[in-house]
Amino acid sequence: MDEPTRAPSRPAGAGELFQLLRDGRPRTRSDLAARTGQTRSTIAARVDQLLASGLVSPAGEAGSTGGRPPATFAFRPGARVVLAVDLGATHARLAVTDLAGSVLAEHDEQLAISAGPHVVLARVVEIGELLLERAGRPVSDLASVGVGLPGPVEHSTGRPVNPPIMPGWDDADVPGLLSDHLPVPVLVDNDVNLMALGEHATQWPTVDHLLYVKVSTGIGVGIISDGSLRRGAQGAAGDLGHVAVPGGANKPCSCGNTGCLEALASGPAIAATLTALGLPTRTGAEVVALVHAGDPDAARAVREAGRRIGAVLATCVNLLNPSVIVVGGQVADAGDHLLSGITEVVHARSLPLATQHLRIVGTRTGAAAGVLGASAMAAGHVLSASAIDALVG
Amino acid sequence: MDEPTRAPSRPAGAGELFQLLRDGRPRTRSDLAARTGQTRSTIAARVDQLLASGLVSPAGEAGSTGGRPPATFAFRPGARVVLAVDLGATHARLAVTDLAGSVLAEHDEQLAISAGPHVVLARVVEIGELLLERAGRPVSDLASVGVGLPGPVEHSTGRPVNPPIMPGWDDADVPGLLSDHLPVPVLVDNDVNLMALGEHATQWPTVDHLLYVKVSTGIGVGIISDGSLRRGAQGAAGDLGHVAVPGGANKPCSCGNTGCLEALASGPAIAATLTALGLPTRTGAEVVALVHAGDPDAARAVREAGRRIGAVLATCVNLLNPSVIVVGGQVADAGDHLLSGITEVVHARSLPLATQHLRIVGTRTGAAAGVLGASAMAAGHVLSASAIDALVG
Repeated sequence: MDEPTRAPSRPAGAGELFQLLRDGRPRTRSDLAARTGQTRSTIAARVDQLLASGLVSPAGEAGSTGGRPPATFAFRPGARVVLAVDLGATHARLAVTDLAGSVLAEHDEQLAISAGPHVVLARVVEIGELLLERAGRPVSDLASVGVGLPGPVEHSTGRPVNPPIMPGWDDADVPGLLSDHLPVPVLVDNDVNLMALGEHATQWPTVDHLLYVKVSTGIGVGIISDGSLRRGAQGAAGDLGHVAVPGGANKPCSCGNTGCLEALASGPAIAATLTALGLPTRTGAEVVALVHAGDPDAARAVREAGRRIGAVLATCVNLLNPSVIVVGGQVADAGDHLLSGITEVVHARSLPLATQHLRIVGTRTGAAAGVLGASAMAAGHVLSASAIDALVG
Repeated sequence: MDEPTRAPSRPAGAGELFQLLRDGRPRTRSDLAARTGQTRSTIAARVDQLLASGLVSPAGEAGSTGGRPPATFAFRPGARVVLAVDLGATHARLAVTDLAGSVLAEHDEQLAISAGPHVVLARVVEIGELLLERAGRPVSDLASVGVGLPGPVEHSTGRPVNPPIMPGWDDADVPGLLSDHLPVPVLVDNDVNLMALGEHATQWPTVDHLLYVKVSTGIGVGIISDGSLRRGAQGAAGDLGHVAVPGGANKPCSCGNTGCLEALASGPAIAATLTALGLPTRTGAEVVALVHAGDPDAARAVREAGRRIGAVLATCVNLLNPSVIVVGGQVADAGDHLLSGITEVVHARSLPLATQHLRIVGTRTGAAAGVLGASAMAAGHVLSASAIDALVG
């Protein structure tokens, strides 16, 4: 032997072939051969591998112009399930979904993130096992877990990085703590990124440039650019809470700076404004309740907060040129007042080329955005070309 | 026949295989088999295709532990050439480079973009043919052309979109006008995007998140995120000239708004400040000359402009979490004064997680950034997996 040889590990390409089937449309072997330029015999062998994996199943016969109609094949999203976990400061929302994000069982409860990773993640495992049971699926059907956390996360390791409202979680090994009990891949990201993923995957799958803005106790953005979530160098992208607002008041912020967006336009900031006007409120939820009760001062304060957010989003629009901005989070429940304020200033302060096709809309997935995004992240991980190749290899 | 059949158009994958060779390192067939999981016979056939195309050539023998040492193969960047064109408001810079961006011949001249697309592009063809001759390469060696323009461009069609300083160019068919004379693919983008590409490709190839800021008559940003240039929905991403500066003065801008970054920190804006101080100046170049002559007012005005730019970049840093910001453009020739002002405010107004590993540096490619980026864009187009597959198919 003049060169070291290695046995070919697998015929490459079943994973790539599977990507063509992920949209759920049934396809014939001929369709797949034409789309890939691969031979019929190669396609037949790869389809057999995918059928054996259970991720693809026969889907009936295609129409034919004569003779025996050809068989079709389609992605079978129910082949496996994922556990989707959205943890907030005081609230947990979990779901077991299929691989296309359809919810099979779900559960909400109050759960304080401040109880620390061991307590919180033990409870996540308990609820996860309960939901699998309720969905009638054994743990062996679980393909992966997706977790959203209310703070910065190093996505590659799944560890929180100095999260301000998560005492005890800094650098915690979230995947390790969960996979001791649920022995599958665990993906972790911050909640706003997952809301952007969830809204994009379920409502705007064909839009390549989308921003999802969460307006709540904090203010953050999830960025979809060229069809994918962009996390930045340390996974810190989208953290707009402490940027300075153009034209904004010099109000002190808890971070030590002044004039931060959160100090002017978050739920608690709007509540403080209303309290100063003689309407004692503490949280965004109380502000929203006042708006729904028809209080004009509350509506005006929410609209003004929208203008402050719009002043920062105008810079984001000029920088990234998205075609859709989705506004979600607790304060977005106040409805059109927030959207109007945002839209007014984004249009006043952005270039015509960047706004002529821009849509600014309220969330369609509401409080489910995060859990839908956790499901999309978890399913995306196990359905990637390389994961499928490893599975069928 | 019960299904329509098509002949396999090609054995898929020569293009993908070529991507493994693009870094220029010589590799053996065994290396390539191990990296792709493909069989030795498949690899041998694909390597033969790439050798026949001329894009890959034998690169000697690898070290061996005994027996005949195995042959290695490497990308041959000189196989073809590209024409790289950087057009500014009053200046043209062109180069013929190989497929790895090495300049074989170059030319600079004054050329007014306002002469319109027919006059300007005819001159581009003339210079291009001259440079090919000077590089000793026939037109048949030309693989593609890359063009940078000083205004917004729809990248997919290569047409300018309402460019403010390019009279007569709106919606001009730049690729069509050039390929009448140079019958190869023509790629077009705005100049700042190409500066980002050029700086990234040649100086920071392993950095995945980089912003290139051009400070000149206008102010713009080119965005590299997850390793690729991000252009946004209409190709308008990065246009920061007319965003509002947090804490900035309410100065009127030519766009009709007030407090725009360009009105406060562009070359002409700094010149206007100095003129008001009794130092008559008109352009960024004159400001830079004053700084180099040791004028303290000019140095102070440039530093203050840096602070204004920093206030906007701080928002960009919080939004995108880059690890490198490169500062270029005419005003950057003023040196550390501009960088210091930018760095001061970016650090004051960004989250620690986003700045702890952030480097803010001056351009290393200087006035060549745009033409290097045009070369990288043009070469990238013809070396993509699908382009190679079409070539060898």
